[in-house]
Amino acid sequence: MVVGFEKAVSATKSVVTSAKKAPTTLSSDRVINFARGDPTMYESYWRQMGEKCTVVISGHNLMSYFSNAGHFCWFLMPELDRAIRRLHCVVGNAVVDDDRYIVVGNGSTQLFQAVLYALSSSYDPDTEPLSVVAAAPFYSSYPEETEFLRSGLYKWAGDAYSFDKDGTYIEVVTSPNNPDGAIREAVVNRDGGKLIHDLAYYWPQYTPITGKADNDIMLFTFSKATGHAGSRIGWAIVKDIEVATKMVKFMELSSIGVSKESQLRAAKILEVISDDCQNSAPDKEENFFEYGQRLMSDRWEKLREVVKRNGVFSLPKYPQDYCNFIGKYTDPSPAFAWLKSKDGLNCDNLLRELKIVTRGGTNFGVDSNYTRISMLSPDEEFNLLLERLSAIQGTIINGNN
Amino acid sequence: MVVGFEKAVSATKSVVTSAKKAPTTLSSDRVINFARGDPTMYESYWRQMGEKCTVVISGHNLMSYFSNAGHFCWFLMPELDRAIRRLHCVVGNAVVDDDRYIVVGNGSTQLFQAVLYALSSSYDPDTEPLSVVAAAPFYSSYPEETEFLRSGLYKWAGDAYSFDKDGTYIEVVTSPNNPDGAIREAVVNRDGGKLIHDLAYYWPQYTPITGKADNDIMLFTFSKATGHAGSRIGWAIVKDIEVATKMVKFMELSSIGVSKESQLRAAKILEVISDDCQNSAPDKEENFFEYGQRLMSDRWEKLREVVKRNGVFSLPKYPQDYCNFIGKYTDPSPAFAWLKSKDGLNCDNLLRELKIVTRGGTNFGVDSNYTRISMLSPDEEFNLLLERLSAIQGTIINGNN
Repeated sequence: MVVGFEKAVSATKSVVTSAKKAPTTLSSDRVINFARGDPTMYESYWRQMGEKCTVVISGHNLMSYFSNAGHFCWFLMPELDRAIRRLHCVVGNAVVDDDRYIVVGNGSTQLFQAVLYALSSSYDPDTEPLSVVAAAPFYSSYPEETEFLRSGLYKWAGDAYSFDKDGTYIEVVTSPNNPDGAIREAVVNRDGGKLIHDLAYYWPQYTPITGKADNDIMLFTFSKATGHAGSRIGWAIVKDIEVATKMVKFMELSSIGVSKESQLRAAKILEVISDDCQNSAPDKEENFFEYGQRLMSDRWEKLREVVKRNGVFSLPKYPQDYCNFIGKYTDPSPAFAWLKSKDGLNCDNLLRELKIVTRGGTNFGVDSNYTRISMLSPDEEFNLLLERLSAIQGTIINGNN
Repeated sequence: MVVGFEKAVSATKSVVTSAKKAPTTLSSDRVINFARGDPTMYESYWRQMGEKCTVVISGHNLMSYFSNAGHFCWFLMPELDRAIRRLHCVVGNAVVDDDRYIVVGNGSTQLFQAVLYALSSSYDPDTEPLSVVAAAPFYSSYPEETEFLRSGLYKWAGDAYSFDKDGTYIEVVTSPNNPDGAIREAVVNRDGGKLIHDLAYYWPQYTPITGKADNDIMLFTFSKATGHAGSRIGWAIVKDIEVATKMVKFMELSSIGVSKESQLRAAKILEVISDDCQNSAPDKEENFFEYGQRLMSDRWEKLREVVKRNGVFSLPKYPQDYCNFIGKYTDPSPAFAWLKSKDGLNCDNLLRELKIVTRGGTNFGVDSNYTRISMLSPDEEFNLLLERLSAIQGTIINGNN
């Protein structure tokens, strides 16, 4: 039996019968999956780092439920709190002054739900559930994460652009946006609005860092910052202690806190990155973000070339901007490519013909002539993607003429 | 600002003004907290084990979301699956045949909620939420974990003994029970009942292992099995693949799986325990469960002596039984002492007078003349508890005569 995270594994079992078979000249016949955002491409960087990031944990370490009894977020390890604040200072992508509260979660996925609870749980139980909206195209998991328990506290209300109800609501602002990489601001802008800023991709490898984000509730995740998705570590930076405290309550009831092993390792890795970024030695090596930015730029350049050549798809254009961290103008190089079929065809079907699994636009609240491709796969798979996309022109022309 | 896990930390701030002040002869004046079940008493055992249980994790390890793509529980590490099955075989406390499915969670807390979702999500959305019951006294967190999101799928329906609604329902059977250590079976026993067996304490240090549990859905947790609460690892053993698959779906939506660092470490520690239990060398050292059973028996003996001497409280009596694992008759020695005030007084208030924080009976669905005391504290605190309980007779007599 096969079950898929975000419908991705099972999607590989889908059979597309309506289109012409892929040419057999491709270097491999296997299905390659770009529907997921598994950030495995960073593995080679961390391998090069050798023992600098190694953690050693003895059998008697980290046993208690508590990391910091008496602190409002009693399960947050103080060393992780410090490492998070330091990294944001070094990168300059978020305000982490002492009056901002950090809540750690099992990934930003759990924290997103903790925020929904925190913002809605004090409302009168007899009133309607709070509406949760995001501007389309929005992250495909928001609707299901909001709806799956049929909470009486909050409910998914769809595309923020078409939201016209009165009263309190929650808008999720994802910037850079997943799936399309756009820099975003709130779109509803009405009285009673509460904002969640999902800033998972506001790091130098994905976008120029133009200033310190300073929103009420900001979500970040270790998965996308450094590529350590298996650790399930996310964090929220929160201005209002009451909101932060309710988030902690959610975390208590949902999972009694967060793995200390993961917190310890995240703290270590974030500190190493900060050390490297602050290293001013003349012979210093490329730091993690410089490496990531170079790799992502290179991938985007190659992808744009292939897409331009085959003429079947288009990609969004992003304005260059000055990155305070890199210290020069850089092009955005998002974690996902948001591909559009020029002829209005179903993008997923076209690509599955070439044994490329992607996540179609309907998952993100838009049409099927869009699809999302992860840019974070290992080199071998990314190169296969380029190879197969280069071959698509002939296939499409043969299949549609 | 202080926020408490299970109301415990903040409980230390409560001020009891209605009773006489504690005698000043106690060896320490500090408040000691027995309201939580933080299993820190096992730390000294694991410290003695030296490097046998040490895990070393490099920066490039465990990066992907996936542990076993294609497996129904794609985030479960195969080595943890194996270690869990092996330990249950060695201890003989649960059936783990190949047709049983293991789902890992961020503690059994998250898995409990995953089961509620799995058992209720296929019901008609227009019907009433599924009733969730447990026989009082029941674990104090079940009601809040069931209610806090005001789910339309399930709702807390209180004490199983007084449940009389028709139709489908869920009964949680905790055995040995938290708080009172009783060996339990389902009490509602009506058509349409679905059972969750919370077997967190069905290990040799707490109770004689009289046979392999073979229930539809069984929950276990690393916290209580070995004392590693900070790792947030729990597991479910499930007979029905459809239920297990829906639990995995819940885990995906709730937190996209479980920390791999914690899974790796849990696998290592469980394997070491199994190795030690299977060691037949004549000079072998005490294995973890023998150590735990000896320690807990010793604590219970001391506590019973003190309680008998002071005459103010009573403790439940448990029948001795043959433990298949230890290989002789043993007395149950539960993780919590379920203390009853003989005079019907408020137990919590009596004990807070002595700066002992406990969790009162009303949290568990019964009267305030009961309270729960953790038996898993470090030695120093447990000894302080005994000392203060020994001193209570005079206090109570002075205060109530």
